[in-house]
Amino acid sequence: MALSHVTSGQPISLAPPAATLASVPTSALFKTDQLEVIRVVLPAGKAFPPHQVAGDITVQCLSGAIEFTIGEAHDERSVVLSAGELLYLDGGVRHGLRGQTDAVVLVSIVLRPHV
Amino acid sequence: MALSHVTSGQPISLAPPAATLASVPTSALFKTDQLEVIRVVLPAGKAFPPHQVAGDITVQCLSGAIEFTIGEAHDERSVVLSAGELLYLDGGVRHGLRGQTDAVVLVSIVLRPHV
Repeated sequence: MALSHVTSGQPISLAPPAATLASVPTSALFKTDQLEVIRVVLPAGKAFPPHQVAGDITVQCLSGAIEFTIGEAHDERSVVLSAGELLYLDGGVRHGLRGQTDAVVLVSIVLRPHV
Repeated sequence: MALSHVTSGQPISLAPPAATLASVPTSALFKTDQLEVIRVVLPAGKAFPPHQVAGDITVQCLSGAIEFTIGEAHDERSVVLSAGELLYLDGGVRHGLRGQTDAVVLVSIVLRPHV
């Protein structure tokens, strides 16, 4: 467990700590050997360029809406993910995010096995 | 991927499909080789007795509030998890859930490695 201010079994508020999205940074909420959970703050129009990670991920939209692009550049598709929706993505799949409105997104990444 | 009606990259609404909690069953939203995500419906007073799983888990309260108990019977502690809060729990730790109000909870379980 890499972040010392949150421990196993301790509730974490998912709401950003301030009212103004622009002033709230994206932050890892916690990271264990197996799993990392990151709260991504995406003001409208801001994008994370396409990338990929080895493990399976889930992306949950907490507020606002994002455009989520999936696949290689020559064969890319996009879906809109709105507040209260979640998707999972198989590991190794290229993906990118863009705020369609001001948005907050919870990203969970499987890192390693449990044994 | 065990559930055929949801695929990688497909948005899933986290809201229960019906207005009345009592009529909505707990259901696995999806399961991959690495990760299982379950939406647990917990009417007030209903409990899942203490149990444990091998992998790390996260528990996110989507609505209502639950009492979440952690640890062995002789050394049990409990925390209240309310809507908009999440906790993680190290794999192998005994835990139980009880609806403090009518509640909906998202449970994610790390199953296996990504390699």
